[in-house]
Amino acid sequence: MKVRRLQPDKPCHRPRDSLFSWSSGFDNFTGFVNWGFLLLGIGGVRLLLENFIKYGIRVDPWQWFLFLSGKNDGGEEYPSLLLICYSTVPVGLCLLIEKGLSVDIIAHGTGMVFHVINLVVMVLMPMVVIHVKDSGFSLVGAMYVCTLYAMLFLKLWSYIQVNMWCRLSSRKKTTQGRMRRQLSYNNLQSSGIQQSANDVSDFEHETNDCGNSLVQYPDNLSLGDLYYYILAPTLCYELNFPRTQRIRKRFLIKRILEVVVGCQVVMSLFQQWMIPSVKNSLIPFSNMDVAKASERLLKLAIPNHLVWLCFFYLTFHSSLNLLGELLHFADRNFYSDWWNANNIDTFWRAWNKPVHRWAVRHLYIPIVEMGYSKTTASLTVFFISAFFHEYLVSVPLRTFKIWAFMGMMGQIPLSVLSKMAERYCGPRWGNIVVWASLIIGQPLCIMMYYHDYVVTHFGETLIEDYSMV
Amino acid sequence: MKVRRLQPDKPCHRPRDSLFSWSSGFDNFTGFVNWGFLLLGIGGVRLLLENFIKYGIRVDPWQWFLFLSGKNDGGEEYPSLLLICYSTVPVGLCLLIEKGLSVDIIAHGTGMVFHVINLVVMVLMPMVVIHVKDSGFSLVGAMYVCTLYAMLFLKLWSYIQVNMWCRLSSRKKTTQGRMRRQLSYNNLQSSGIQQSANDVSDFEHETNDCGNSLVQYPDNLSLGDLYYYILAPTLCYELNFPRTQRIRKRFLIKRILEVVVGCQVVMSLFQQWMIPSVKNSLIPFSNMDVAKASERLLKLAIPNHLVWLCFFYLTFHSSLNLLGELLHFADRNFYSDWWNANNIDTFWRAWNKPVHRWAVRHLYIPIVEMGYSKTTASLTVFFISAFFHEYLVSVPLRTFKIWAFMGMMGQIPLSVLSKMAERYCGPRWGNIVVWASLIIGQPLCIMMYYHDYVVTHFGETLIEDYSMV
Repeated sequence: MKVRRLQPDKPCHRPRDSLFSWSSGFDNFTGFVNWGFLLLGIGGVRLLLENFIKYGIRVDPWQWFLFLSGKNDGGEEYPSLLLICYSTVPVGLCLLIEKGLSVDIIAHGTGMVFHVINLVVMVLMPMVVIHVKDSGFSLVGAMYVCTLYAMLFLKLWSYIQVNMWCRLSSRKKTTQGRMRRQLSYNNLQSSGIQQSANDVSDFEHETNDCGNSLVQYPDNLSLGDLYYYILAPTLCYELNFPRTQRIRKRFLIKRILEVVVGCQVVMSLFQQWMIPSVKNSLIPFSNMDVAKASERLLKLAIPNHLVWLCFFYLTFHSSLNLLGELLHFADRNFYSDWWNANNIDTFWRAWNKPVHRWAVRHLYIPIVEMGYSKTTASLTVFFISAFFHEYLVSVPLRTFKIWAFMGMMGQIPLSVLSKMAERYCGPRWGNIVVWASLIIGQPLCIMMYYHDYVVTHFGETLIEDYSMV
Repeated sequence: MKVRRLQPDKPCHRPRDSLFSWSSGFDNFTGFVNWGFLLLGIGGVRLLLENFIKYGIRVDPWQWFLFLSGKNDGGEEYPSLLLICYSTVPVGLCLLIEKGLSVDIIAHGTGMVFHVINLVVMVLMPMVVIHVKDSGFSLVGAMYVCTLYAMLFLKLWSYIQVNMWCRLSSRKKTTQGRMRRQLSYNNLQSSGIQQSANDVSDFEHETNDCGNSLVQYPDNLSLGDLYYYILAPTLCYELNFPRTQRIRKRFLIKRILEVVVGCQVVMSLFQQWMIPSVKNSLIPFSNMDVAKASERLLKLAIPNHLVWLCFFYLTFHSSLNLLGELLHFADRNFYSDWWNANNIDTFWRAWNKPVHRWAVRHLYIPIVEMGYSKTTASLTVFFISAFFHEYLVSVPLRTFKIWAFMGMMGQIPLSVLSKMAERYCGPRWGNIVVWASLIIGQPLCIMMYYHDYVVTHFGETLIEDYSMV
């Protein structure tokens, strides 16, 4: 090579690969993230401008309130708001039971039975209300109330379990302490040396990084502490959450802007692109026309996927960070890098960290510690997760089909497929399978639910009428 | 912190940032590249499917041939094909002049004058033909012929300059050799020791990595060598290009598929999305209606940008790699990571490596070596680049406006802006300025040219007619 470089023609070429060729090993594509945000931002600004040219300024907070209150065109009540207010009841009951347990008014077994009854009643409440109100309850209102109740269920579960751990540990400590005191009393009698200095450390208040003393078990059982936890962006209870020192103003403003602009983008995409697409695909889907149905499905896939991406960013980055900043909550690990996931399992572990952390801490590890195998624990986590997916979709839609449950079950062969792709074709292909399942799988589920929703609520005739046209 | 971890509530939170927050320092977004390709792939498949459902199979190579031959609806000839065939004449002349120079039939000064005349006539040829044929020449045909001629100009410039370097160097060598031989003859006479062994090394054939001997100066002046260089994906001539050992079949097939599918995607985006968008924005643009014109501009920005990205990938990755693979050409450095560029200068250096390498090797360094300052050299490169941008746009459109030239001039304030953004707001903002100028700047130029093209070729009346409607 050196000889070549000394030639009089000043050589400037040497053997090397293009950066997009996998063989080049190049992997710095950070610039494309800025690009993605910029494109979404430009798209958002254009939609706002178009809307402004057409209609002028039409921001109406009252419409938003109606939308979120769950009031339907026909209804006269605000069922979502009522259900949110009602949620204070199971929360208060839960705290009362814990108080009773902490001062030994209620026995452990009885307390647990109370807790289970309280939680089950809570989870069933939206199902009953939605069934009773039926058409007096808007779809979006019903959907987010179900999400709130599901979250509350997981949060209270964690609260109860953590308090139980603390209670068991403090009982053990006091028993040990009593035994040790007895021992030192004996020593004192025999040798006359005062040894109780050791015991002081057991009851001394431990401090955190900031020098504040850590809250110890029964002191945490207050309504303020419980509501801080319920508002905080986590599903795992702790007595002493890591806290930030101050609220960063610029950070806060950025997140607020993201939520405001992002919601507009999602709603525009939804109304202008997804809804017509879903409606148009009803007939080919119903007639099992494979070529047309696939074409429709692929057409739906792109706006649906963009909506999902925006939704992910708005929920897991903007909103949870906004909440965390306001509440001085320091742990912002709401998602890890699922976009690089090489198989479905990694993806499920990475995209929703709060739920994943809850499942590991409050379901998987306890089951393993109870002596069951890891497979049993994994399967339990999987089935409970499938149940909640079904709960979040079927209850608001009032169609008790099991597509969401089947979708979750479909993750098992997909996981095998993605792992095979990873092993035999390289990690890039595993990643491509994960992305493809996201992009194609979701619109497929949406089409199935929409089809069933239309058939259940408007009957087969509507579809037949459509086919005639 | 350790104290906290030992608490009985099994803490699982710790202070940390979300990955999308810049403060987290996370930068592995490789998965999004797979995502981008997958989305484009899905979009392409859907378009093909839609097209197939509507029209059946309609691949017509004859239409492609007509399209590329430059034949217009009215015309009866194939002007692009004729111009491509004609291009062999300046290439042949160039080789003849070089041959003459190498055997000292033509003096250095005269040869250079011949070369300059030959190249200038070559570059003017498409301008004249397009002007004479006028409406008998399709826009696309004219555009790619101009590109071919511009490339040929740069390639022959490099060829001539490299041969000149070799000639000068071999003359120096022979002169030195003659002097040294004279010297050693004298030594031999005085000391009787044979010293001519040194000289042998000067004429010994040097070998490259594969053990093949390197081609030396006058041996390279053959039509085969020249045409290999003209077909090879580079603008910089060398006597001994780095070569690959074999053609990778899978690599070749992938690149061919990319070119075939990619062309479909680009053409569909162009026809179904860009052309209506450009036509719709003509009126607001002509009436200087700022709000409507910006809305149109942003609407045009996204498809235009997608077309540009596809075009970039198809040209600089798929096509050039395909060509390189077929020709055993080993240096595939056709672009570097412009997507991470933090200022406009870096972007221009990175996105089109063949032209950048040519400009540095054959313009910038020679000018600096001639004793001029680096600023003069940079400005010369900049102006020649601006000239060629204007040439590639104005000649095919037959509107000698200077928007492309102005666009290039606009790079100077943009460069300052992006460097200020990089320095004062961090490199991310520099990168965002670069992306924004790409996304917004291009459709602005396109709108200006389209507006002028319509005014020049169809008159103001058309626009007024439109405005009435």
